Amino acid sequence: VAPPKPPEGLQVGPTSAEDAFIQHIRAALAARLGDAPEGEVWIGDDAAVLSWGPGPLLLTTDSVVAGVHADLDLVGLDDLGWKALSVAVSDIAAMGGRPRHAVVAIGVPAGSAPGPLIEGLLDAAAAWHCPIVGGDLSGAPVVLVAVAVTGALEEGSAPAVRRSGASTGDHLFVTGALGSSAAGLRRLRSAEAATRGEFADDPLVRAHRRPRARVDEGWTARRAGASAMMDVSDGLSIDLHRLADASGVGFALPLAEGATLAEALGGGEDYELIIATPDAPALEAAFAGADLPAPQRIGTVTADPGQRVLGDQPLARLGWEHRIG
Amino acid sequence: VAPPKPPEGLQVGPTSAEDAFIQHIRAALAARLGDAPEGEVWIGDDAAVLSWGPGPLLLTTDSVVAGVHADLDLVGLDDLGWKALSVAVSDIAAMGGRPRHAVVAIGVPAGSAPGPLIEGLLDAAAAWHCPIVGGDLSGAPVVLVAVAVTGALEEGSAPAVRRSGASTGDHLFVTGALGSSAAGLRRLRSAEAATRGEFADDPLVRAHRRPRARVDEGWTARRAGASAMMDVSDGLSIDLHRLADASGVGFALPLAEGATLAEALGGGEDYELIIATPDAPALEAAFAGADLPAPQRIGTVTADPGQRVLGDQPLARLGWEHRIG
Repeated sequence: VAPPKPPEGLQVGPTSAEDAFIQHIRAALAARLGDAPEGEVWIGDDAAVLSWGPGPLLLTTDSVVAGVHADLDLVGLDDLGWKALSVAVSDIAAMGGRPRHAVVAIGVPAGSAPGPLIEGLLDAAAAWHCPIVGGDLSGAPVVLVAVAVTGALEEGSAPAVRRSGASTGDHLFVTGALGSSAAGLRRLRSAEAATRGEFADDPLVRAHRRPRARVDEGWTARRAGASAMMDVSDGLSIDLHRLADASGVGFALPLAEGATLAEALGGGEDYELIIATPDAPALEAAFAGADLPAPQRIGTVTADPGQRVLGDQPLARLGWEHRIG
Repeated sequence: VAPPKPPEGLQVGPTSAEDAFIQHIRAALAARLGDAPEGEVWIGDDAAVLSWGPGPLLLTTDSVVAGVHADLDLVGLDDLGWKALSVAVSDIAAMGGRPRHAVVAIGVPAGSAPGPLIEGLLDAAAAWHCPIVGGDLSGAPVVLVAVAVTGALEEGSAPAVRRSGASTGDHLFVTGALGSSAAGLRRLRSAEAATRGEFADDPLVRAHRRPRARVDEGWTARRAGASAMMDVSDGLSIDLHRLADASGVGFALPLAEGATLAEALGGGEDYELIIATPDAPALEAAFAGADLPAPQRIGTVTADPGQRVLGDQPLARLGWEHRIG
């Protein structure tokens, strides 16, 4: 028979665009993180094959959609890629784990060049020592990236730190100043388009463009006896309520300082960790011992789940509700 | 101080839409698959905490975007959800593994009701015994779902089956007739909108709406000594080239039967498995012993990577190139 003619929708080529792209990503990843260890299979088969120790598997997913979580007039495609992987790693950090592997589902409009997006993903993979071991490339009306990340604890160690473990009298900490990302976004928005590049390395702008996952902080807090932990992705004043909800407790915060109050409470995407612990000196000593910035004490866990106060006022449940319509 | 006023973009509410949604999914999942085993944490924390045995971890991701991989004029949102989880499970099946857990990143336009989408995801989670243990909900310009799935092999068993293991003289099988999904799509397209519901349970339409992951088939083939395996997602005539490329071999196929030739070769999304094996009788006996439909022998692996023939003609590399522009 003659070779079959392609039906509508089929294309013919020596290799598909997807296959070529996979080759590029595999090579670029190897340049940053080396080849897969003996016995492991990373990108290029139906699924990755990964060795796993005796401990539990942590697993999470997060997604970043252009125009929803990132304004490509203000940040680069590389920043979007960085963010997508880093915010998923942050979820692992918030359990006290270390990231191990990522798989990445990417959607891009036809004709767009996803190269910078991939670069940002690879930069984050290198920064968090989290190789991209598989992925999926797809057409989509806007740029979007969904990342799933595995995480591990060391063998025989303290268990993963959940949101639900806070007890009355525990001390509440955050790992750093809140509101930086929101302040950086405000700075970018107020700048003329032509001058935005000048702000690229401004610390607040950088906090918005290249959020950090607090992996060492989460790991250290878990080992120092943290009772509950989560990352601040939607803003302290909604995420702190979530931790209190999960734990069935209340909280009392003295007045916060730094940035503007609204930004510190409501400005999301800082990815600092909220930590509850019965033993504040142990936490502070562990952070000092690990050469980490001192955690900031923000308040106390209280018994009454109805008590949610800032100073002497109720703290409203404020947060970025961009995530679902 | 007075409670801070919400800056632009912030909303206030007793619980966020996302939190309520998570509660719904958790309850619906428990109704289908029970609660998380002791010691595991599923939906609702920063990351899932999962027990894992001594064997390797399989990990994959796939995504489905409305208008790209699914036409919502022809199939339902529930079908899109089903497909998103099932095609990721198919990747695990193609390594010879069983799915263990899924995490799901969902994007939906503001104001749309994702309920049917979730139902389809949960139906697939129940069908493949693959609990959804975490997720992310986001706004997006169109409905999209990215699913990452873990998979496991039993301890001390044959290793995962890669694409690259085919050797000269191996026999090539597929697990079932190809072209069903393409034929079902054609049937839906040719039907008047008002009559499409009548076709919902037509076997070809069902193959398109509710593709099956060949988990038992892949598991059985691995244990019966398969040397290479992959699933047919983009069409036999591109996926067979991919397997041959990975293995550095050629292939010779006698003429195929069933559906139309072009659909069988080029029509993607059947998710049947391509299996190479040096021991055809062992494969056939194992499928019979597992009460699985007999695998269909389609050809032979040849030594020359340049030989890719159907009958006596070269087989062009045809495939659906919808995946990246």
